Amino acid sequence: MGMTITQKIIAAHAGKSSVEPGELVLAKVDMILGNDITAPVAIKEFKNAGGQKRVFDRKKIALVPDHFTPNKDINSAQLSKVVREFAKEQEIENYFEVGRMGIEHALLPEIGLVVPGDLVIGADSHTCTYGALGAFSTGVGSTDMAAAMMIGEAWFKVPESIKFIYKGKPDKWITGKDLILYTIGDIGVDGALYKSMEFCGEAIEALSMDERFTIANMAVEAGAKNGIMAPDEKTLKYIDKRAKKPYTIYNSDEDATYAEVYEYNIEDMEPQVALPHLPENVVPVSSVENVAIDQAVIGSCTNGRLKDLRDAAMVLKGNKVHPYTRLIIIPATQEIYLQAVKEGLIEIFIEAGAVVSTPTCGPCLGGHMGILAKGEKAIATTNRNFVGRMGHPESEVYLSNPAVAAASAVKGKITHPREVVNNAV
Amino acid sequence: MGMTITQKIIAAHAGKSSVEPGELVLAKVDMILGNDITAPVAIKEFKNAGGQKRVFDRKKIALVPDHFTPNKDINSAQLSKVVREFAKEQEIENYFEVGRMGIEHALLPEIGLVVPGDLVIGADSHTCTYGALGAFSTGVGSTDMAAAMMIGEAWFKVPESIKFIYKGKPDKWITGKDLILYTIGDIGVDGALYKSMEFCGEAIEALSMDERFTIANMAVEAGAKNGIMAPDEKTLKYIDKRAKKPYTIYNSDEDATYAEVYEYNIEDMEPQVALPHLPENVVPVSSVENVAIDQAVIGSCTNGRLKDLRDAAMVLKGNKVHPYTRLIIIPATQEIYLQAVKEGLIEIFIEAGAVVSTPTCGPCLGGHMGILAKGEKAIATTNRNFVGRMGHPESEVYLSNPAVAAASAVKGKITHPREVVNNAV
Repeated sequence: MGMTITQKIIAAHAGKSSVEPGELVLAKVDMILGNDITAPVAIKEFKNAGGQKRVFDRKKIALVPDHFTPNKDINSAQLSKVVREFAKEQEIENYFEVGRMGIEHALLPEIGLVVPGDLVIGADSHTCTYGALGAFSTGVGSTDMAAAMMIGEAWFKVPESIKFIYKGKPDKWITGKDLILYTIGDIGVDGALYKSMEFCGEAIEALSMDERFTIANMAVEAGAKNGIMAPDEKTLKYIDKRAKKPYTIYNSDEDATYAEVYEYNIEDMEPQVALPHLPENVVPVSSVENVAIDQAVIGSCTNGRLKDLRDAAMVLKGNKVHPYTRLIIIPATQEIYLQAVKEGLIEIFIEAGAVVSTPTCGPCLGGHMGILAKGEKAIATTNRNFVGRMGHPESEVYLSNPAVAAASAVKGKITHPREVVNNAV
Repeated sequence: MGMTITQKIIAAHAGKSSVEPGELVLAKVDMILGNDITAPVAIKEFKNAGGQKRVFDRKKIALVPDHFTPNKDINSAQLSKVVREFAKEQEIENYFEVGRMGIEHALLPEIGLVVPGDLVIGADSHTCTYGALGAFSTGVGSTDMAAAMMIGEAWFKVPESIKFIYKGKPDKWITGKDLILYTIGDIGVDGALYKSMEFCGEAIEALSMDERFTIANMAVEAGAKNGIMAPDEKTLKYIDKRAKKPYTIYNSDEDATYAEVYEYNIEDMEPQVALPHLPENVVPVSSVENVAIDQAVIGSCTNGRLKDLRDAAMVLKGNKVHPYTRLIIIPATQEIYLQAVKEGLIEIFIEAGAVVSTPTCGPCLGGHMGILAKGEKAIATTNRNFVGRMGHPESEVYLSNPAVAAASAVKGKITHPREVVNNAV
C-alpha cells in the first residue's frame, strides 16, 4: 500500500521502509526549535535530568528569542538571558540574537535551516509552518524539546492524512490566508485533529512560497499534527539559494490512503474574515458590516513575509490610517525588514501613519507591541483570535489577510481592499 | 536691574514688567504636556475636581502616549485608553496616536507646537528640552497638570540663573551630549538645584539644533528647573518652517544677575561617559577600559534625533554589531524615522544587526523594548543611569553620545568611535 508524504518522511527518519497511521515510532530529528518562552523550560529540564552535559548536536538546535523581545520587562529579560547563556555554554550554532533574527517560523526556512524532507520539532505550536517546504514539522512541549536535545530523537504516532485540493483561479485579493481561513471555516478547529493536512491542487501551485507558509502555518488551527505540501519548482527555487544542507523530495504515492478528501473551487472566493473568538468563525469580508476597529496588526509567523508587506503597501500607498485606528506592521525577519526598506514599503507605511517595529511575535499572543484594552477590537493577520489572545479578556480579534487588514486600518472599520485601492489618490 | 531670559519669559506670562528670583507668580501657560503614564493621573484629578467639564483650551494641551507604547501589556493599554478617550471627549487638538507621533520632547518642537518665548509645563521631567528654542519649559507633577488644564495657569517660583559659557572648537567626536555630561560631571546632580541653566558661548552657537535639545534636555539631571539658550539664526531657521503660532525672542540683559558663571574650554575634550549609577559620574571615554556591554541603546528624548542617527550610521556603516551585544536604535519621531529611511540610515542599521523600533521611550526608563536582566551592562544615549533605570536592580547603565554607543556595540565593550571608524572596511 502507498504512503503519503508525511508517512514517507517519518519512515525515513525512523529507519523503516514503511509506517502506518497510528503506529508509534521513535524518529531522528533534523532540527529542534525553541524560543524565549519555551526554551527556558526545556533548558531547565535538560539540566535537571542530570547525567548528560552536552546537547546531542549543537548544529541541530535553533534558539530564537522572538516572543517577548526586545525584552519588555525584567522577567522577559531573565528568560532571554537563560536562552542566551545556554546557547553560549553549549556553543549552539543557531542562536539568533535580537537585531539579527526574525520570528522563528519565518526565519528558519529563510536561512535554509529547514529543507524538504526534514523532520523538525519545535516547542511552539506553529512549527507546522515548514510543511510548505515538504518537510514534516510539528509543535511539541518543552519536555519533549528537552528530551530531543539529549538524544536527537522523539516519539511520534504516525498521523492519518486528509487531502485538500484547491481548484480555480482566484480573484486578485485572494491569498493563501484566505484559502486556509476558508478551510478552517469549513472543517472547524478540530476538523483535522492529530491528522496531517496535505494541501494540493492548481491553486496551491499558483501561490507564492510566502503564501504557502501561511497555509501550512495555520494547519494547527484545525487541530492538525502537521500541514504539508509536495515540493515543486517554486519550492526548489526558494530552497536552492538558501539550503545549508542536502535535502530529499518526497511525494505522496497515488495509492496513498486518506482519511478524507476535500475539494474546493476558489474561483469566486471573497477575502475571508474569522470573527471572534475562533479561527473557524469564517465569513466573507463583505458580510462583515460596520465593525469599527481600534487596531490593525500586519505581521506574525503567519503573515509577516515580503508578499504580505507588499500587499499591505499596495493598499496603503497614498492613503492614511484612520484617525481612530492604530496600524502596527511588523516585518517577520530582519531580511524582510531590510528588503522592505529597499523596496520603499517602509516609507509607504510610515507615511500612512503606521507603527513599524523590529521583528517580534508580540501582539499576536498578547505579548507586547500592541496589546488591546478592554472593549477594543482589532483586525490582524495573525493566526488565533481566542478570547483575550491580544490583550484584555473583553477585547476582540478578527483574522484576515494583509490587504484586508490594511484597508480596514484606512477606513477604521473592516473593509474589502478594493474599496480603498479604487479610492486612492 | 536687568533680567535673564528666563525671568523675562516668566514675567511676560505673569503679566508683570519684571520678576525677581525667589518671587512666586501665577503665570499663563502656552502648552501643557502629558504622556501615557502621567496624563491618566491628571485626567483623574481633573474629573474628580468636578465642576469644570471642559479643559481651558483644547489647543493648548498635548497628549503623547510614548512611554509604554505600542502597549506592552493590558495595564499599559488601559492607561493609553484613558488618554485616548479624554482626548476624544475634550476634542484635544494635539493628541498623537502611535504611528503618527514621536517621543514627546522630540515631537513638540519638531511640529512647531513650542516656539521661542513660550512658557510650557509638562508632566514629565524632561520637559526642560524646549529651552533649546529659547522657551521656558519645566516638568511638573500630574496634579499641577490637572490644575493647569482647568485654569491655563500655574504657580512658579522664579529661579535664579547660572550661566554656562562654552568656548573652543571641539574634536569631531564631541557632541552636545558630551558638553552636558561634562557639565553635570563638574557641578553634580544637584549642582543647579531649582535654578535655571543658561547655556551660551561659541561652542553652543556652533551646535546643531538637535544637539542643543540634548543639552537643554539634561538640565534636569543637574537638578535644574529649566535649561535655556537664546535663539539665534539656527533657531529661527529651525522654527520658521515649523511654528504653528507667533513667537517672541527674549535675550538676557547684559546686567542680568547670575548666581554663578561657569566657563569651559572644550578644545581638548574627549567624548564623555557617565558611569553607573549617577549622571555626574562622568569620565573621558578613554579612561573606561574593558567594560564589556550586553546592550547599546541609541534613542530617547535625549538622543534620538536625526543628527544622532547620522552619527550612529557613520560608525556602523560597514561594521557589524558584536555577537554578544544587542544594539537597539529608536528614532525619536516618525518624521525622523522616515527621513532616516530616505537617507539610507535604517538600511545601515539593519545590515549592521541592530534592532530598529518605532518611536518609544521604552528602554530609557525600563519601560519596554530592551530591558536589562540581572548583571547586564548597557551603554545608552539616554539621560539617566540610576540603579535599575533600564531593568534589573543589579544591571548597570553607562551614558554616552550616539557615536560612542554605536562603536561600543561593534566592539562589545565601551569604545571611542575613532577605533571603529578607522578600522571600518
